[in-house]
Amino acid sequence: RRSIRLAVVPGDGIGPEVVAEGLKVLAAVLPQDVKLETTEYDLGARRWHATGETLTDADLRSLGQHDAILLGAIGDPTVPSGVLERGVLLKLRFEFDHYVNLRPGKLHPNTAGPLAGSPAVDLVVVREGTEGPYAGNGGTLRTGTPAEVATEVSVNTAYGVERVIRYAFERANARPRRKLTLVHKNNVLVHAGNLWKNTFDAVAAEYPDVTTDYLHVDAATIFFVTRPERFDVIVTDNLFGDILTDLAAAVTGGIGLAASGNINPTGAHPSMFEPVHGSAPDIAGTGTADPTATVLSVALLLRHLNHDQEAERVEAAVAADLAERDPNAPRRTEQIGDALAARLAG
Amino acid sequence: RRSIRLAVVPGDGIGPEVVAEGLKVLAAVLPQDVKLETTEYDLGARRWHATGETLTDADLRSLGQHDAILLGAIGDPTVPSGVLERGVLLKLRFEFDHYVNLRPGKLHPNTAGPLAGSPAVDLVVVREGTEGPYAGNGGTLRTGTPAEVATEVSVNTAYGVERVIRYAFERANARPRRKLTLVHKNNVLVHAGNLWKNTFDAVAAEYPDVTTDYLHVDAATIFFVTRPERFDVIVTDNLFGDILTDLAAAVTGGIGLAASGNINPTGAHPSMFEPVHGSAPDIAGTGTADPTATVLSVALLLRHLNHDQEAERVEAAVAADLAERDPNAPRRTEQIGDALAARLAG
Ligand SMILES: CC(C)[C@H](C(=O)O)[C@@H](O)C(=O)O
Ligand SMILES: CC(C)[C@H](C(=O)O)[C@@H](O)C(=O)O
Repeated sequence: RRSIRLAVVPGDGIGPEVVAEGLKVLAAVLPQDVKLETTEYDLGARRWHATGETLTDADLRSLGQHDAILLGAIGDPTVPSGVLERGVLLKLRFEFDHYVNLRPGKLHPNTAGPLAGSPAVDLVVVREGTEGPYAGNGGTLRTGTPAEVATEVSVNTAYGVERVIRYAFERANARPRRKLTLVHKNNVLVHAGNLWKNTFDAVAAEYPDVTTDYLHVDAATIFFVTRPERFDVIVTDNLFGDILTDLAAAVTGGIGLAASGNINPTGAHPSMFEPVHGSAPDIAGTGTADPTATVLSVALLLRHLNHDQEAERVEAAVAADLAERDPNAPRRTEQIGDALAARLAG
Repeated sequence: RRSIRLAVVPGDGIGPEVVAEGLKVLAAVLPQDVKLETTEYDLGARRWHATGETLTDADLRSLGQHDAILLGAIGDPTVPSGVLERGVLLKLRFEFDHYVNLRPGKLHPNTAGPLAGSPAVDLVVVREGTEGPYAGNGGTLRTGTPAEVATEVSVNTAYGVERVIRYAFERANARPRRKLTLVHKNNVLVHAGNLWKNTFDAVAAEYPDVTTDYLHVDAATIFFVTRPERFDVIVTDNLFGDILTDLAAAVTGGIGLAASGNINPTGAHPSMFEPVHGSAPDIAGTGTADPTATVLSVALLLRHLNHDQEAERVEAAVAADLAERDPNAPRRTEQIGDALAARLAG
């Protein structure tokens, strides 16, 4: 690919700070002859306060004309909870049919700090991104009275479940360990759980080389803490995936390293890459956010656009940087970005 | 209380093994003049295979005539997933209106093993027990076809949410740190989330001495791993509580220590005490299950029946036993029960 049209959504809180470093690294790693065209989009709290808009049809059309989207973070305490998350972030995931939410978790054995000495972890969570409890189905009756009823409907379709499970099998089949774990709660959420389990078992028959197992979500959290190295690829629904990927981040070096790709594998719409951490309003503007998760999201973006070699170079630069980190000498956001860019330019 | 009518449900897998030790400890700690009458109930896989029954109305009536229920575990791989969980365990919780699912997590600072040296943790999760995603509401359409839709409806009522939140405030208010954290996901599950958050804020106004905060469930998992000592009392819905209490167990000494009480605070129905771990079919019959979680559940049972002093003695015996455990010399189920009973008799 000789040119990349990239839509950039810095967003709220620390979003703009980490995105700046992600772009710095992207510029440093791309070969001279690849033209990078970026369009910045003003989405999030500022825009909503100024105009009342979250994400318009015009925004969607315009964003849709890009090869990929790089997003920082969406969400701000000055806006009622859910307005921006549902109105911008989830709307992007749903409108662009990002049915694979890909979240790798890697622990390099030489990581310093409390996790030093742990076995190496190399897992990938394939989180469903377009249905389940995130469908936005539900409502309230007698709102605000002592007789209120509030519902949330998890909507699961064979169509949606099968495509993400199939993707997870493909991915597991291409990795050395070839292991795929389904996580759900099919002893309680029996309707959705059976659909997930039956679909999983049916697709498994087509991948005889992939070893499979099933864990209830509660048991899975225990394994994430006690034996994260047991996992290779994990496939799960939208909400369990949300929870498990923050937990995976916690046990593989922290949320400052957790990257994600919201992927539409068909290519019908641009895929979107973002750090798993949110807007972190408490540290916004202090220049102390770790941009590494965004940089690793840029690596996922590069790989998605078939720039495999550049993706690997970015990941190698991060690994080298992590190996040399001194927990007693924290660096500022832009120092980390500069150090990574310097490694790539060198 | 000079007599205790206790219903005992050993259940499946390791259930009978750990319940035996729980009863041993209960007998050892009760003063001579307290009469303990136990009735054993055959519920779970064996009964279902033999009769097709899960929990009958007659069982419920009979169980209902007891002061409390001690349950081991329910669930077996030979029974379709959900049949016993929904048909026995959850049915008991729902029919006896166990709206408080109380799950303490304690890490004694001198615990051996990988957690040694961690700060002391002393938290209690107050998990809602009678509604939310566990309501059993939902179904499937075009079952088993490529056009299947499966739904799960989380049902949340002001009635159900307020009573459990109020209980959590009472409990937080009676503890030294007086801190209560609400965990939900109100930026995505906005209908249920707003009901929980608004109710929480309204009740908070009545408890000015309780410090409150709110965490999204994904962020909460990170804190459980990185800073569990930040938590005092946590209140959350049925599903988030299920997930967080296994995680809490993992970071406070393991699932072998995690106790729970399914409590009906009104006393209209007997409360039920059970270890958080399940039936663990993989180790059933080997005599290697740790009965400590059941013994600590017995302590919760004693406290519920106003035998505070006996509850404290049981907890002290467990703490002393834990402090002396040698991770290189694991004991068998009944050895641990014997050791605890001996401490109490001594
Ligand atoms: C901000 C929020 C809507 C989002 C989610 O729940 O998916 C975030 O937690 C994530 O994991 O990307
Ligand atoms: C066995 C299962 C139905 C149960 C639950 O989900 O509540 C268990 O995991 C628990 O936490 O007590």
